[in-house]
Amino acid sequence: MSGFAAAEYQARLDRAQDMMGKAGLGALLLTTEPEIRYFTGFLTRFWESPSRPWFLVVPVTGHPVAVIPSIGRALMEKTWVQDIRCWSSPDLEDDGVSLLAETLEDVAPEGLIGAPSGHETHLRMPLADFGRLCAMVGVERMAEDAGIMRRLRMVKSEAEIAAIRTACDVAGRAFARVGEIAGVGVPLSRVFRDFQRLCLEEGADWVPYLAGGAGPLGYDDVISPATDAPLEHGDVLMLDTGLVVDGYFCDFDRNFAVGAPAPQVEAAWETLLQATEAGLKAARPGARACDVFAAMDRIVGGGEAGRLGHGLGMQLTEWPSLVSGDRTELSTGMVLTLEPGIAVPGGGILVHEENIVLRQDGAEVLSPRATGPLQRI
Amino acid sequence: MSGFAAAEYQARLDRAQDMMGKAGLGALLLTTEPEIRYFTGFLTRFWESPSRPWFLVVPVTGHPVAVIPSIGRALMEKTWVQDIRCWSSPDLEDDGVSLLAETLEDVAPEGLIGAPSGHETHLRMPLADFGRLCAMVGVERMAEDAGIMRRLRMVKSEAEIAAIRTACDVAGRAFARVGEIAGVGVPLSRVFRDFQRLCLEEGADWVPYLAGGAGPLGYDDVISPATDAPLEHGDVLMLDTGLVVDGYFCDFDRNFAVGAPAPQVEAAWETLLQATEAGLKAARPGARACDVFAAMDRIVGGGEAGRLGHGLGMQLTEWPSLVSGDRTELSTGMVLTLEPGIAVPGGGILVHEENIVLRQDGAEVLSPRATGPLQRI
Repeated sequence: MSGFAAAEYQARLDRAQDMMGKAGLGALLLTTEPEIRYFTGFLTRFWESPSRPWFLVVPVTGHPVAVIPSIGRALMEKTWVQDIRCWSSPDLEDDGVSLLAETLEDVAPEGLIGAPSGHETHLRMPLADFGRLCAMVGVERMAEDAGIMRRLRMVKSEAEIAAIRTACDVAGRAFARVGEIAGVGVPLSRVFRDFQRLCLEEGADWVPYLAGGAGPLGYDDVISPATDAPLEHGDVLMLDTGLVVDGYFCDFDRNFAVGAPAPQVEAAWETLLQATEAGLKAARPGARACDVFAAMDRIVGGGEAGRLGHGLGMQLTEWPSLVSGDRTELSTGMVLTLEPGIAVPGGGILVHEENIVLRQDGAEVLSPRATGPLQRI
Repeated sequence: MSGFAAAEYQARLDRAQDMMGKAGLGALLLTTEPEIRYFTGFLTRFWESPSRPWFLVVPVTGHPVAVIPSIGRALMEKTWVQDIRCWSSPDLEDDGVSLLAETLEDVAPEGLIGAPSGHETHLRMPLADFGRLCAMVGVERMAEDAGIMRRLRMVKSEAEIAAIRTACDVAGRAFARVGEIAGVGVPLSRVFRDFQRLCLEEGADWVPYLAGGAGPLGYDDVISPATDAPLEHGDVLMLDTGLVVDGYFCDFDRNFAVGAPAPQVEAAWETLLQATEAGLKAARPGARACDVFAAMDRIVGGGEAGRLGHGLGMQLTEWPSLVSGDRTELSTGMVLTLEPGIAVPGGGILVHEENIVLRQDGAEVLSPRATGPLQRI
């Protein structure tokens, strides 16, 4: 069986069904990669293809039922899921909708059918097909999932924490080798390619995310793809990667000084380390996401800061958000990023990021923590 | 300006607005990466983060309006889009919904608002927020996009074809080096990692997709991640990659014989080449997608075959589908994959794939075409 032991999925199912019962849900209807993998362990890069919808029905009693394209049957049979119902997709007349409706009628004839509908979710099926489904099962039965998937996924098991730690270790080893690939005259686009190669060499299964930037006084933003501009003496180079091992992400960045950095950059870096330390201290069970934001925001200052961290796991970014408006209570087992950013006087921005897990007595850092002066390459 | 020349986007806009006028649409509402990039050139890997919604409004007259998180402003300003409206996302109270509603009222006060809703589409925003939007702008104004995005994106410009050809060339060079990384005793998981490294070395910006398999009589399926099982003498190894250069994909595979292949494998390979040739001959402007399917299916046989190819471009798989039920008329400029698969007697399956573009006089192969006996490594 691929993925975690069946006991892990059974425990997730038990927790979900308890919440569903309390919320009056007869079933959860799941359509996205992390939602379906959460209950099944079904891991494939085939989600890159948008052609086919995939469904998982989690009834309030009994086991999950996979309603999936037949191309996925062989792989789904390697998971703990027993009830797998397939159709030949893409079917331009009926792409699994009536099979899904029949399955819902079969395994969840009563109660509301809850689909994740809040922030950070989407429905991965054609809107017109969702309309057909509502007509088949009765629009009055369709409901939100009462935040159940969010509450479940926010708290990680030890098996999940171990997977994230492994991903962090891989990225840490790749970051330790950046001096091999980056220096004066090397185009940023080549640094990006070579850094992904280092991630693979160090054990990443794949590298879904890499962003970064470079400039003498920081960078413009943290989401741009690389240009062919060569690194120059005095630049600060930032690489931010979300690589995957066994289906779990890390998400942290590192900044490097190409030669001697400008004094403003060194000062900004020092402030980022202080903000990270403040975030670490504030990130405790019982605190709220906004408290951790406030602890860092007090140091990096300014209402422009936006989000200063977020949850992490099967996706690059998950709930909660370290923003002023997120009052989510933190608890043991949550995995978060601390991601303070600061404007460099007269220039761009500098962003630093670490990954942590919350333990009873406070935060444990999962990424190999950056300390001391800005690393020179 | 990043991406293609502004004239490319203007031409796309002109075609879209012509179709929108005929369909009675006042605006298109777009929410996914390829849809938004199609009209803007906005290229970032940040879509990997599901936290924030992004919107593009394409009015029936005038220019597209980006309604996006402020974290994307700097990058969107590098595109040809002039009208960029931002909010600080994630905003747990109102994550861009009222700003989007105001924008629609402002630039498209009349006519239906069409969102892509058919096969292969989804709405990348929370379902609850879509409900709020419908309430704000009037649910009677919300409509499907009349298939406009599909019709637009199916036919590629010469600039797009050149980008896909570049991606194919990169993958071709990586496939030519598989002998460096694969052989008896090498775990499949290491082959996967190393092949992605080859793709990067040969010029891929990133490698969003890699699947494959290995076995003496073919493989179980084409979507599984790699196991640690070592390659054995007599295995056939398949690697199928969708790598990206400048935001455009290739999508083709190659099969390799690890030592001497079984006679059934050699026979299956020969049949796949014949099916590919038949597909190439059938893929002409004026033919239908199902005709190309039928030409290949006649040779690989059997109703179990499923899809034997698909469109390709900004996504790994796009419209149309080479299935028996897809009557889409093919036209000049369409980029397709031909992907015949066949069962190996007593074993698994063998799949071969090439990428083509339709010209007035027939198909031109974009991938370095595989011919002759199964390549040995």
